Amino acid sequence: MKSPKFILFTVMLYLSCTAGTNKTTTSDSAENTNDLATGTDPLPAWNDGPLKQAVVNYVINATEDANAGFIPVNDRIAVFDNDGTLWSEQPLYFQFFYSFDKIREMAPQHPEWKTKEPFKSILAGDIKSALASGEKGLMSIMGATFSGMTGDAFESSVEQWADTAKHPTTKKKYTEMIYQPMLELLQYLRANGFQTFIVSGGDIDFMRAWTEKLYGIPPQQVIGSSFKVKYDSTGIERLPEFSFLNDGPGKPVGIYRHIGKKPVFAAGNSDGDYQMLQFTGTNTLPHMEIIVHHTDSIREWAYDRGSPIGKLEKGLDDAPKYGWVLIDMKRDWKQIYPFNK
Amino acid sequence: MKSPKFILFTVMLYLSCTAGTNKTTTSDSAENTNDLATGTDPLPAWNDGPLKQAVVNYVINATEDANAGFIPVNDRIAVFDNDGTLWSEQPLYFQFFYSFDKIREMAPQHPEWKTKEPFKSILAGDIKSALASGEKGLMSIMGATFSGMTGDAFESSVEQWADTAKHPTTKKKYTEMIYQPMLELLQYLRANGFQTFIVSGGDIDFMRAWTEKLYGIPPQQVIGSSFKVKYDSTGIERLPEFSFLNDGPGKPVGIYRHIGKKPVFAAGNSDGDYQMLQFTGTNTLPHMEIIVHHTDSIREWAYDRGSPIGKLEKGLDDAPKYGWVLIDMKRDWKQIYPFNK
Repeated sequence: MKSPKFILFTVMLYLSCTAGTNKTTTSDSAENTNDLATGTDPLPAWNDGPLKQAVVNYVINATEDANAGFIPVNDRIAVFDNDGTLWSEQPLYFQFFYSFDKIREMAPQHPEWKTKEPFKSILAGDIKSALASGEKGLMSIMGATFSGMTGDAFESSVEQWADTAKHPTTKKKYTEMIYQPMLELLQYLRANGFQTFIVSGGDIDFMRAWTEKLYGIPPQQVIGSSFKVKYDSTGIERLPEFSFLNDGPGKPVGIYRHIGKKPVFAAGNSDGDYQMLQFTGTNTLPHMEIIVHHTDSIREWAYDRGSPIGKLEKGLDDAPKYGWVLIDMKRDWKQIYPFNK
Repeated sequence: MKSPKFILFTVMLYLSCTAGTNKTTTSDSAENTNDLATGTDPLPAWNDGPLKQAVVNYVINATEDANAGFIPVNDRIAVFDNDGTLWSEQPLYFQFFYSFDKIREMAPQHPEWKTKEPFKSILAGDIKSALASGEKGLMSIMGATFSGMTGDAFESSVEQWADTAKHPTTKKKYTEMIYQPMLELLQYLRANGFQTFIVSGGDIDFMRAWTEKLYGIPPQQVIGSSFKVKYDSTGIERLPEFSFLNDGPGKPVGIYRHIGKKPVFAAGNSDGDYQMLQFTGTNTLPHMEIIVHHTDSIREWAYDRGSPIGKLEKGLDDAPKYGWVLIDMKRDWKQIYPFNK
């Protein structure tokens, strides 16, 4: 990327050219996108246009030594939010569905839950009341289902859930509700020497149980919120005490702590990603920041300002100022999930 | 490695065969070591013998698919302590010399240090008295020199120090006092698909400023103790509050938090590495744990039980029980530092 302003300009141009249609594809831009070294389109689930072209140009420039956009391979660090950026997050972050499923599973061993909130509401299938218990209630749900066991036991439990559990409205497995265009982008970046990391507000170990299988991202490249753990000679024990919130200003902290290097590429979808995008934007190397804007109420969900999950407000307001690229899911993505073929 | 007992047996055999000599090299073992796929010795700074052969066998078996010792490439995680394992640590952990140098440098801006311990003693060149100030004193030294600045400023400061500062007794740069045999081992493991990590009690960001240049280990593969940091829109600020001690039982915790996977290979040198070796030893995949035993008072330093720095006592006692391989620096290393040619 030559400059954030250049990206912003091409995106604004695209918006004005394509207003009112979802399928505007000039033969020019299609040619450009396909005219890569390999001769094949690296991002087939993305609609052609200046936005896709800007991403492809950024990657091509990053790898060409003589180019002003060149990035040394060790500095090609790309960070991705997870909920709402790599997979869906509605009507509620999927890790809460894991907790609810576990509470139902564990209920026979906890007769006291029949009368104790928020467990009582969860067991009665009244998720709304359970969530109304606020932060304290949510932390007690998380504490009961994310801690008090060994690291190995938690990993196995999440793995088994990921292989089987299904989403309440789509009836698809949660692990099928990942975004095909983002899978392609991860793969495309890696094929060009980028290291891809997840930087999410979700629990670090919850994600690590399946990110390698789903996204090709190994555990050591996953950063998230965490519970305290301790070691004794038998292994790692998960403690019922929250340790680190990897969200908002916590994301640059998590990046500094785990990666120790400023990213050149960042993708997010909500105001929880604001500081991560801002931090990436201060890189002196060529950098790119993108926001997945949920605009497709038919194929996925449409939400931004005022949404209780994945609120995007500050990010929408300040994207032009920072040169952040807004991906309009409805307009820019040909396909949403891998099963939408 | 077929079993820890097998390693232990070969090492004990070696010890009994080579007692009283530093140069015992049978033509058999030399042939075995050199008879690798590449035809060249991957560990030339190691004296030939069963110990070196055991390491080479472990690596060869790990990479050969049909072998019982095979390890899938994603599971080839190798962890290394730093102080006393990859570089020297006497008469004091080198990061304290960084602090002392910085205190002298910063003294003109801190007239109060002339009368305040432990700063007063450091400025007077009386390190013994400074250290006698105990944990509280050491933390005030660390706080003054490892925090209260941006992440970028700290990194530049350490980089500059690493390029120039010299050790009080060897008069060599600290960054020259790295172990040639361990550099070869890191390189050999990486050439065979292992990912090499540092897991040290030292400050994570202090190490990250030079580990890539010295060891080929990038910042995201360095785990260490840490100070708290915060983010504001201008960047990362280092706070004068200690956050995590990555030593002893903290090492498996640091590994779980940063890597999220149990290592198959671990190298340490002191009782601070005990739990890391023990944790690695519970891997169900073929695993190897080694201890660098400081036995060479001529070429380096000789110390173990009762040493204030790098005490090795529990590890020496329990190495046979766990099958940990003891490297006798005097006997097993042909060369210590890269400059000892």
